[in-house]
Amino acid sequence: MTTVLTGITTTGTPHLGNYVGAIKPAIAKSKTADYSSYFFLADLHALIKCWEPEKIAQSTKEIAATWLALGLDTDSAMFYRQSDIPEIPELTWLLTCMCSKGLMNRSHAYKALVAENEEDGAKDPDKGITMGLFSYPVLMTADILMFNADEVPVGKDQTQHLEMARDIAARYNHHFGEHFVMPKTIVAEDQAVLPGLDGRKMSKSYNNTIPLWLPEKKLRKHIMKIKTNMLEPGEPKDTNDSFVFDIYKAFATKDQTANFKQAFADGIAWGSAKQELFELINTELAGPREKYNEFILQPALIEKELLKGAEKAREFSAPFLQKLKEAVGIRRIS
Amino acid sequence: MTTVLTGITTTGTPHLGNYVGAIKPAIAKSKTADYSSYFFLADLHALIKCWEPEKIAQSTKEIAATWLALGLDTDSAMFYRQSDIPEIPELTWLLTCMCSKGLMNRSHAYKALVAENEEDGAKDPDKGITMGLFSYPVLMTADILMFNADEVPVGKDQTQHLEMARDIAARYNHHFGEHFVMPKTIVAEDQAVLPGLDGRKMSKSYNNTIPLWLPEKKLRKHIMKIKTNMLEPGEPKDTNDSFVFDIYKAFATKDQTANFKQAFADGIAWGSAKQELFELINTELAGPREKYNEFILQPALIEKELLKGAEKAREFSAPFLQKLKEAVGIRRIS
Repeated sequence: MTTVLTGITTTGTPHLGNYVGAIKPAIAKSKTADYSSYFFLADLHALIKCWEPEKIAQSTKEIAATWLALGLDTDSAMFYRQSDIPEIPELTWLLTCMCSKGLMNRSHAYKALVAENEEDGAKDPDKGITMGLFSYPVLMTADILMFNADEVPVGKDQTQHLEMARDIAARYNHHFGEHFVMPKTIVAEDQAVLPGLDGRKMSKSYNNTIPLWLPEKKLRKHIMKIKTNMLEPGEPKDTNDSFVFDIYKAFATKDQTANFKQAFADGIAWGSAKQELFELINTELAGPREKYNEFILQPALIEKELLKGAEKAREFSAPFLQKLKEAVGIRRIS
Repeated sequence: MTTVLTGITTTGTPHLGNYVGAIKPAIAKSKTADYSSYFFLADLHALIKCWEPEKIAQSTKEIAATWLALGLDTDSAMFYRQSDIPEIPELTWLLTCMCSKGLMNRSHAYKALVAENEEDGAKDPDKGITMGLFSYPVLMTADILMFNADEVPVGKDQTQHLEMARDIAARYNHHFGEHFVMPKTIVAEDQAVLPGLDGRKMSKSYNNTIPLWLPEKKLRKHIMKIKTNMLEPGEPKDTNDSFVFDIYKAFATKDQTANFKQAFADGIAWGSAKQELFELINTELAGPREKYNEFILQPALIEKELLKGAEKAREFSAPFLQKLKEAVGIRRIS
């Protein structure tokens, strides 16, 4: 049995990129017998970048409703809010004491911020950088090690975090005994990185997303805005250079993709290609969208699922943390 | 009602310096009606410097037994183990997100370690520095803000930590509403800084301590080792330049101190002066020492007190943390 762990930061509205890149494959995997799946709403991570309480609360609701609407089986998988597991911040401190500062200094994300400050000629290279930004790889390590995850699917930009997690885990094991398994990095395939409206990776940060739960009309409108070239109807079109095609492929079967490729060669008009793309996506999402809207109208149902998940997760995390604390010398007096 | 908070890191055996500088005045204050007192065993701080589990466990027992033997009233005061309050590491993360990295960069303790590395010609100025060492002022801030302490008695070397706590508290209040009071620094009077055997501040780090609970004979032996000058019996001695006198003063009444000063002027022999010092200390400690030894033989009694304390402390910390989480956007979905 392989334990696989996926978290989504609760700072925005779920979009097609999240769906294709993370949620859909994760739910599919959770339905196979070989995997024990952990899905969590990373609300403690949300605090790093977002100091807008309403936005975090709203995003948490939307992301939770998304997993549920897409058919996550909360009986077989663990589904919880990070902040409902107090053992995670407790473990974070234990690991903080096992983590060299140099490891954090070398974080790509941190170094990029410092480089920006230096380019801007800031006096202090750490200008605007909080301790949350600097030390979140330790929190991420705790997320992973708390449940001894074997596999963590991440984007390419996150592979360093998994190296850090292994480094910290190994150091703990070395000093206090073999408690942690070494988590493996599973890098998402290229296919799973969806382009946004402008062709760059679909991401909140680029403001180029297509929200997942747009009503039908708006979904169509967004899809019609995807950037294309100036080729006229009738002119053959290159699938290697088309975001419309890239997104289509992420939703289509092999046969559908082959047919769409043929249509490109045959000179399909961009308007028609986008209409086909819209229909493909809409067919897949129409059912879940209805369920999503039902969940949003019944927030107490979402909350109930999350509390159930936290209880189940803590059946593991609470006694495990107890063991980890005892290993470092934090024990009942006797 | 003023809330006052004192923590002792559980990495060593309590010594006369801890007693005179922290424990004795803290217990005395806790018995006055104007103060609500919080005393805690800082075992999460212990992990920063000590990776010897047995040592931490042993120290926790000894320090807890010390407070109890010295007459701490655990019904009126809060007496708890830091690690029994999961809300403290949870709050630590909330505050980590509110703390600029620059604030930690400017920590005297951190800068001293970097300076040492630079002197040693280390390639990496952060050599050997863990994230625990770098970020512990945030944990300390959480210790203080968790119970909205009004006053925190600290040594001179710790005043910066209180400035940091106020800085972080103010930033949180600014963004999320007035939740925290600004903790006041109370710097221990000079009298309360006890010299060790070699005349430097009595401290574990200097290996110059007189353990608090030495059996009578050993206590006498240690006191006989206090550094003195070469003046003979009969020669007048200067009280301003005598560690024996400094320690005596910390234990004596005003009258006793005046008499001892006279004896110095009259040329008391060092051996006799030390004998008087021994008798003074031993008289004060003999009763508590018996109680201490009883507690050490009944660890379950200590544990019971700590669990009672944690329960009482969490009656405050749990709902307060709930409010703090709600303020940043971590809420039940409804």
